[in-house]
Amino acid sequence: MLAGSPDHLQQRNTSMPKITLLLALLLLFHAQSHAQNLEFTDATTLTLYGKSPHSGAHFHRVDTARYNDMPPAVKGLSTHSAGLAIAFKTNANEIHARWEVKEPMRFSNNMTAIGKRGLDLYIRRDGQWEFAGVGRPGDKAASTFRLVNNLEEGEKECLLFLPLYDELTKLELGVPKGSLVQPHQLTWTGKVVIYGSSITQGASASRPGMAYPAQLARKLNYEFINLGFSGSGKMEESVAKMVSDIQGADLFILDCAANPSPQEIAERTENFVKMIRNRHPNTPILMIESVVREGGNFDSMIRKRVSDQNKNFRAAYTRLINSGMKELYIIHGDDLLGDDHEGTVDGTHPNDLGFARMLKVIEPKVREILNSK
Amino acid sequence: MLAGSPDHLQQRNTSMPKITLLLALLLLFHAQSHAQNLEFTDATTLTLYGKSPHSGAHFHRVDTARYNDMPPAVKGLSTHSAGLAIAFKTNANEIHARWEVKEPMRFSNNMTAIGKRGLDLYIRRDGQWEFAGVGRPGDKAASTFRLVNNLEEGEKECLLFLPLYDELTKLELGVPKGSLVQPHQLTWTGKVVIYGSSITQGASASRPGMAYPAQLARKLNYEFINLGFSGSGKMEESVAKMVSDIQGADLFILDCAANPSPQEIAERTENFVKMIRNRHPNTPILMIESVVREGGNFDSMIRKRVSDQNKNFRAAYTRLINSGMKELYIIHGDDLLGDDHEGTVDGTHPNDLGFARMLKVIEPKVREILNSK
Repeated sequence: MLAGSPDHLQQRNTSMPKITLLLALLLLFHAQSHAQNLEFTDATTLTLYGKSPHSGAHFHRVDTARYNDMPPAVKGLSTHSAGLAIAFKTNANEIHARWEVKEPMRFSNNMTAIGKRGLDLYIRRDGQWEFAGVGRPGDKAASTFRLVNNLEEGEKECLLFLPLYDELTKLELGVPKGSLVQPHQLTWTGKVVIYGSSITQGASASRPGMAYPAQLARKLNYEFINLGFSGSGKMEESVAKMVSDIQGADLFILDCAANPSPQEIAERTENFVKMIRNRHPNTPILMIESVVREGGNFDSMIRKRVSDQNKNFRAAYTRLINSGMKELYIIHGDDLLGDDHEGTVDGTHPNDLGFARMLKVIEPKVREILNSK
Repeated sequence: MLAGSPDHLQQRNTSMPKITLLLALLLLFHAQSHAQNLEFTDATTLTLYGKSPHSGAHFHRVDTARYNDMPPAVKGLSTHSAGLAIAFKTNANEIHARWEVKEPMRFSNNMTAIGKRGLDLYIRRDGQWEFAGVGRPGDKAASTFRLVNNLEEGEKECLLFLPLYDELTKLELGVPKGSLVQPHQLTWTGKVVIYGSSITQGASASRPGMAYPAQLARKLNYEFINLGFSGSGKMEESVAKMVSDIQGADLFILDCAANPSPQEIAERTENFVKMIRNRHPNTPILMIESVVREGGNFDSMIRKRVSDQNKNFRAAYTRLINSGMKELYIIHGDDLLGDDHEGTVDGTHPNDLGFARMLKVIEPKVREILNSK
């Protein structure tokens, strides 16, 4: 057997003498009996954040029956659990997960399986959410994985980010018998709704918690409702209605300039913004231009398309400002990915370096808007 | 059909009226006739960098017949094309690739398919290598993809990084008929040999050119021989022999503290370093401690293991220095991934953010060593 998988950094034996085999059997027996000592809790009984409106299937982002006139692609993507997170408390010293997704083998070349359909656990330490471990999916619909082990004694606050690009159909959290897993109501400072493209949905974060809206949620302590729809953030009226139905937001972010054609942007942007403004007269709205497409670093046609998208998005912003709209902001796209052209996985979607660079620009602006209220 | 794949940020129609179907057929016909106008060049006729010794199968890193006594896992991983790059010149305005790999569906959850078995094209601009485009693999052994389009007129210098975690069995580059693709001898300042673990091999760079040895090669203009062996960088004598056989290196980097057990590190490190030193009396050797395992942020056992590995690696360094060895350097592991615990995809392997942070520490040190000669 080759040690060819990047999953394994540990030592591995290439021969297996009898003593090793015996040891392996003993370990297997131990693991089995250990598994029998775990108690699993259905995650639907725990606290769920990032979802709105609060109806429809548990791990869907939007109730697609209620918004049945949205484009089919948007409805399909609404079933992906991007941006959803489970909050819970536990006194266990290890945490396991069993989960199932709908389309485990749907192929994409620009994301890790952990990002697409894995789990990402954070634990609060000194008031900050810190990375604790991932749930690595296998190549089937159902996966089981120990998220973290050897935790310190005492009660831990946990936040588990769910798959970015698949429909989660089942999730259970396991802890040793006798330990507790309980719902945990977090005290968010407020709520932000973010609407956009695949980049908003999380492509191509290496794991769910690295999607930039998830990072903003942790950094700012605001609940983020992720309404990124891969390839489909095109500002249709039916979608504007769904977005503007969300109550209680402190900010709407529109990061959707990457998906519509330049002409669609010219035609739809003002109407989309106005539909939100009509329902939310005083809530800030932040427009974010498309990131540069690094595939356009040498391809003049790609470069021109993004430039046209952003030009039309910016023109709509200017018209809205000139018409007297207040509490409307914009972030220009040129500097979002830095200047060395290394911030994407495929010329389009940010890698984790690209997301870190986006946050350097976006986080201070969002913080400024939220703090000015 | 759902627009559910993160591969597609562009506009997509969800209904297909007759006019669209007609247009699609026309485009298909155009694409077909266009493909017929491409001429493909076997990449084995172009210039190959990153390989040593220069023998064995073309896209293997090491001649496994010559080093037949290396551990089977190391020999298997030697067939992966990590760190290899094709240099060529072309006057074409678009560049296509057709390639085949051996194990396209070998599952791993912590890498993108682009990183594992895709291609990554850089073009020189104003003396710097800049990202131009990727070759996105499909879900079969054979893939075809246009790496870049709409290039400016004139001759371009190109450097194409090959798959990190698969065996490349065939590669052809296509350009429009009448355009030229030619070998291109680069003027590297020198050569660096880097031996190590999965992290050295490139896990989990989002694309081949983001592996940190590849980034160092571009930044420093040194050819890098990538001898990262996933899970298997364990400093065996047979491997030390292979590494030390490489002639003409300006620096040996040993980034292998993540794979052996703490005890193996204590037992093997001095011998490994001395075997290189014996063959290369004046060549600098840089030891890099293991990056922190972020999986150990809350898991005290993981934390202890890395701490023990690094302690023993450092102790070996100190003994070697005390024995009078010159031109031996070390980089400590503590700060390599920053301090927010976000630099990995899975708690072990750096994401592109983690690699960027490693480079901030490693690049200046390597530059200092190379410049001091």
